[in-house]
Amino acid sequence: MHVLIFGAAGMIGRKLTGHLAKTGHLHGGVLTALSLVDVAAAEKPAGFTGKVAVSVIDIAASGAAERAIAARPDVIFHLAAIVSGEAETDFEKGYRVNLDGMRNILEAIRREATKSQYRPRFVFASSIAVFGAPLPDLIGDEFFTTPLTSYGTQKAISELLLSDYTRRGFLDGIAIRLPTICIRPGKPNKAASGFFSNILREPLAGQEAVLPVAETVRHWHASPRAAVRFLTHSATMDLAPLGARRALTMPGLTATVGEQIDALHRIAGEKAVRLIRREPDPVIAKIVEGWPRAFDARRALGLGFRPDGSFDEIICTHIDDELEGRLPVLL
Amino acid sequence: MHVLIFGAAGMIGRKLTGHLAKTGHLHGGVLTALSLVDVAAAEKPAGFTGKVAVSVIDIAASGAAERAIAARPDVIFHLAAIVSGEAETDFEKGYRVNLDGMRNILEAIRREATKSQYRPRFVFASSIAVFGAPLPDLIGDEFFTTPLTSYGTQKAISELLLSDYTRRGFLDGIAIRLPTICIRPGKPNKAASGFFSNILREPLAGQEAVLPVAETVRHWHASPRAAVRFLTHSATMDLAPLGARRALTMPGLTATVGEQIDALHRIAGEKAVRLIRREPDPVIAKIVEGWPRAFDARRALGLGFRPDGSFDEIICTHIDDELEGRLPVLL
Repeated sequence: MHVLIFGAAGMIGRKLTGHLAKTGHLHGGVLTALSLVDVAAAEKPAGFTGKVAVSVIDIAASGAAERAIAARPDVIFHLAAIVSGEAETDFEKGYRVNLDGMRNILEAIRREATKSQYRPRFVFASSIAVFGAPLPDLIGDEFFTTPLTSYGTQKAISELLLSDYTRRGFLDGIAIRLPTICIRPGKPNKAASGFFSNILREPLAGQEAVLPVAETVRHWHASPRAAVRFLTHSATMDLAPLGARRALTMPGLTATVGEQIDALHRIAGEKAVRLIRREPDPVIAKIVEGWPRAFDARRALGLGFRPDGSFDEIICTHIDDELEGRLPVLL
Repeated sequence: MHVLIFGAAGMIGRKLTGHLAKTGHLHGGVLTALSLVDVAAAEKPAGFTGKVAVSVIDIAASGAAERAIAARPDVIFHLAAIVSGEAETDFEKGYRVNLDGMRNILEAIRREATKSQYRPRFVFASSIAVFGAPLPDLIGDEFFTTPLTSYGTQKAISELLLSDYTRRGFLDGIAIRLPTICIRPGKPNKAASGFFSNILREPLAGQEAVLPVAETVRHWHASPRAAVRFLTHSATMDLAPLGARRALTMPGLTATVGEQIDALHRIAGEKAVRLIRREPDPVIAKIVEGWPRAFDARRALGLGFRPDGSFDEIICTHIDDELEGRLPVLL
């Protein structure tokens, strides 16, 4: 089985690559080749015995997607994207990569499919950013997509394209709307959603973190491990039950900031919680107010997608995966 | 006021042009110039004293949309499209005109807006084809768009683009989802939806018509006159109450085929009804089964859009507008 990952050098791309390389198969199929594609060179995974090809390409550049698809991978993960903030500040770049790039990939597959029998599994990482306020407390599977960012617009359009290309038989696609990833590894960043991870990750490393919103703020989360599980399940499950509706909201964990902090308290104690500094930021509070709080993701649950069990579990997973199972001595 | 119509030579385009030329204004604003754009030359309207420019361009061709937009029209109607059936048989042509064409127009406007202050009213003719089965009996304003044709996909994508370009301030857009137009003037065609009009228009002209489905089939209709009313209202109403959600389902008239025939009976008598020949066609019945039956279009109603009152009214309007107010002698 040949697996290609667009966006392999990103956070989820690296996690997925690591998982695939480690297990060496995708629910039964032996993984013989991994193509890692990104605008920056992805790292070759350690310990993988199959063939690995690392390509540095821009999917928006003419002919680039064709070259990547020419080897006819069996499974294609498309995780590459200009992120929300940048797609908002650089309108042209966002559309170029997130929309034209998607179309280039789909068209490359269609041209291969037109030459001779080819219908790869295509897994697209969409986002809950396809939804925009005003939103109900619990968003159902049939709620309409009214994005409030260009990024969300590009994701919603990509979902529509994927469903149409699937319906026409050029590929077997699924678009999964990932919850906000928490705990996101790495450094604190300026993304408006950053604090959801910062307030856990930083204290767990013995560092201070800033909380800019009230503890009553509710949001929709998934751990990096859950995200990888959603992707691999998408790559191997029977997609026929989805019919023509190929975009699915993934089951996340709904929690208030207060509930996140309670979990931190249970796992890492009072000293960790004291590292969270309250610095209310009305701008961030306003942005976050328009975000989804919870979904009734029953289609995905019925199709075997499994959310994280609790924030305690999310924190323990982070300690295992990112901190080698240990908390800093000072906590 | 300068009004530009993309798709001016089509059925709705001609009706709209005729209406604008006749009234000479758009809810108060005096109409000084009309730009009629299509792939075929639109007819110049009779009796209009303002400037008329007829352009033959393909909106999908490089630079064509820019040339049309360079004159900075105040109001732009975008009605041009490859229709449903052709977009399904010719995948590339459908995407080229219905998606790339839309983007070319939006980008041409954005570039003008970037040069100096410009924010035209942009009215896009979308379609209830953005919805796909399984559908509830009554489709609400917040129901998701899951098209089952490439045409419907292209319309749904265009709605998303229009909302994003509006949100970014490049234009002031509204996408209106037109019901099936009934009674569609002209000759019977092979469109699966053709019979809804055929069974009224043909008998009203003393001709036989074929009914391929059961009389219990329910669908969502608007007269050509209602469509023109929706378009002109869209061009002049305050769009601020729409917020970022710029796609609206238009209020139609829900009726069964039986109810259509009853209205024909009331207006044109038994002889007209006897011209309808039942020829059940399981293929058409199957296609129509997946179509919307009725909408709860309360957003549009609240914003002042008015549907046709009854099928009796639709038939009388057709007799007025297309038959010079007369039924054939033989009826």
